[in-house]
Amino acid sequence: MILAIDVGGTKMAAGLVAPDGAVITSRRAATPQNADAETLWHTLTTLIDPLSARAEGVGVGCGGPMTWPDGEVSPLNIPGWRGFPLRARLAGRFPGLPVRLHNDAICLAIAEHWQGAGQGSADMLGMVVSTGVGGGLILGGRLVNGGTGNAGHIGHVVVEPDGGPRCGCGGHGCLEAIARGPALTTWALTQGWTPAAVSEPVGASDGGEAYLEDRAVTGRALAADALAGDPMAVLAMRRAGRALGIAIASATHLCDLDLVTIGGGLSQAGEPLFGPLEEALRDHARMGFARRLKVVPAALGQEAGLVGAAALLLAGGAYWTSSRD
Amino acid sequence: MILAIDVGGTKMAAGLVAPDGAVITSRRAATPQNADAETLWHTLTTLIDPLSARAEGVGVGCGGPMTWPDGEVSPLNIPGWRGFPLRARLAGRFPGLPVRLHNDAICLAIAEHWQGAGQGSADMLGMVVSTGVGGGLILGGRLVNGGTGNAGHIGHVVVEPDGGPRCGCGGHGCLEAIARGPALTTWALTQGWTPAAVSEPVGASDGGEAYLEDRAVTGRALAADALAGDPMAVLAMRRAGRALGIAIASATHLCDLDLVTIGGGLSQAGEPLFGPLEEALRDHARMGFARRLKVVPAALGQEAGLVGAAALLLAGGAYWTSSRD
Repeated sequence: MILAIDVGGTKMAAGLVAPDGAVITSRRAATPQNADAETLWHTLTTLIDPLSARAEGVGVGCGGPMTWPDGEVSPLNIPGWRGFPLRARLAGRFPGLPVRLHNDAICLAIAEHWQGAGQGSADMLGMVVSTGVGGGLILGGRLVNGGTGNAGHIGHVVVEPDGGPRCGCGGHGCLEAIARGPALTTWALTQGWTPAAVSEPVGASDGGEAYLEDRAVTGRALAADALAGDPMAVLAMRRAGRALGIAIASATHLCDLDLVTIGGGLSQAGEPLFGPLEEALRDHARMGFARRLKVVPAALGQEAGLVGAAALLLAGGAYWTSSRD
Repeated sequence: MILAIDVGGTKMAAGLVAPDGAVITSRRAATPQNADAETLWHTLTTLIDPLSARAEGVGVGCGGPMTWPDGEVSPLNIPGWRGFPLRARLAGRFPGLPVRLHNDAICLAIAEHWQGAGQGSADMLGMVVSTGVGGGLILGGRLVNGGTGNAGHIGHVVVEPDGGPRCGCGGHGCLEAIARGPALTTWALTQGWTPAAVSEPVGASDGGEAYLEDRAVTGRALAADALAGDPMAVLAMRRAGRALGIAIASATHLCDLDLVTIGGGLSQAGEPLFGPLEEALRDHARMGFARRLKVVPAALGQEAGLVGAAALLLAGGAYWTSSRD
């Protein structure tokens, strides 16, 4: 049984994952906001300790950037951890157990390849379109790490080089700068989008989301409004879909892919997102080898991060190519 | 000793390559223009037969597209070969010898990695900027083929999605549509570039080049004029360099590269090309892992294609991942 851990800016999740990828049990906790390193560590250990007795190994997905395979993490959304030696601390807590840590977006891609919509694909890009836009690249049936474990950053493929919006990475015109949920909702509001009223009390959120009076201003809300036919939300999804299609065309020309999976809140939009995406992709990817590419929604739900983290050990031949345990 | 073959639209080359990558002897012949399949084949066999006695294997680089690893070729610049079974024909001519064939741009990338500017790099993109813009991708020290042998098509990464020029691939705004030699010289002429008078008689060319009265209208001539300070040629190199920088930024975000090598006629331009390239790259690639990327001119000369083709056998563990011989 693998102890799988998924660390994000909003929540931390942990679970026990069986060799076949089934999540036997899982727990989650809110990530303390504005907390120092040891407070964050305490929250994590409190979460995982009840699961540790049966663990034969520890797999971790965490927001980037990080050093890989060393696993010193500096997640953008967790300011209290800067150069935090998460892998080493976990290795110290579980002496004798292998501890493997990778980028959370890469873990989602691994999960889709191992157990989800990417099963059987040899050459795929697993994407997540959410607060950020990330991904993981699997070529020849194996995870591509790149020189520093940072391969798969599809969110920073340039899709609007002239006058594109500034990106959190310091560049501009990146896919993420256009298609990440917060950028898209902001754009939609400036275009006159009025979010539908939320049906749940605002307090029910687990954090990390913006509200306009009692209306949810989230990518997921925007996606839902687009699916319901709201014209401004539809326009916003068209903007995101087009940017996604251009980036995916570039990616498949470079990597000769057969599949792209898209997860995250925005992927719930269905046709209003995937229609314009396909249109832009087909407009740019005309060569025979590129035309075979399929783009599909991710198949796994919110436990995908745990499944992918566990796969670093349970299917390590394909997904863990470092000599480090 | 490997019989290495390099098939292009302008010339065919063949040579014997020693296990250490040294080209022992080589020959070349003009590719017959507007010739049928058997005429082309006859030219090739006439070229290679004198070299065949000592051959222990045959490595081939050929213009794409092609089916890979089967090696049925349909080079864009050789209309007489459409679905021509080049690998099978060579296998028939050399019974018992392994015959391996790959894209010519991929062979150039392999050559740079094995013997040139890419030695020691684990994660690199080898590019050629010439009549077309192509490349080969090496990740984790091994050639990436992609699902159909078409990985490395950096020329079709999108760098000008809005209103970019039409590309030969059917798409638009591709790097190749802007930076390929013929597109760039045409652009430079419309901007008022007057090529320097050629110092050699025009007839000395081996074909495939355009002339304006007695002035060479080639990417190489444009590069030379830029290096000599011609303002319009400098502007053209800036246009190419910027497009290259954007595409390379996207590539390194996706693949986490440590090196890009650039060969082909345009790469002779030096600072007028590489200066704007670096500027655009640094403008878009800001994250730490992307900032480590180095972009350098290719180190090998015109025999690089033969070296790379030979490496398909001489260093096949890194560069030939198909189970087919």
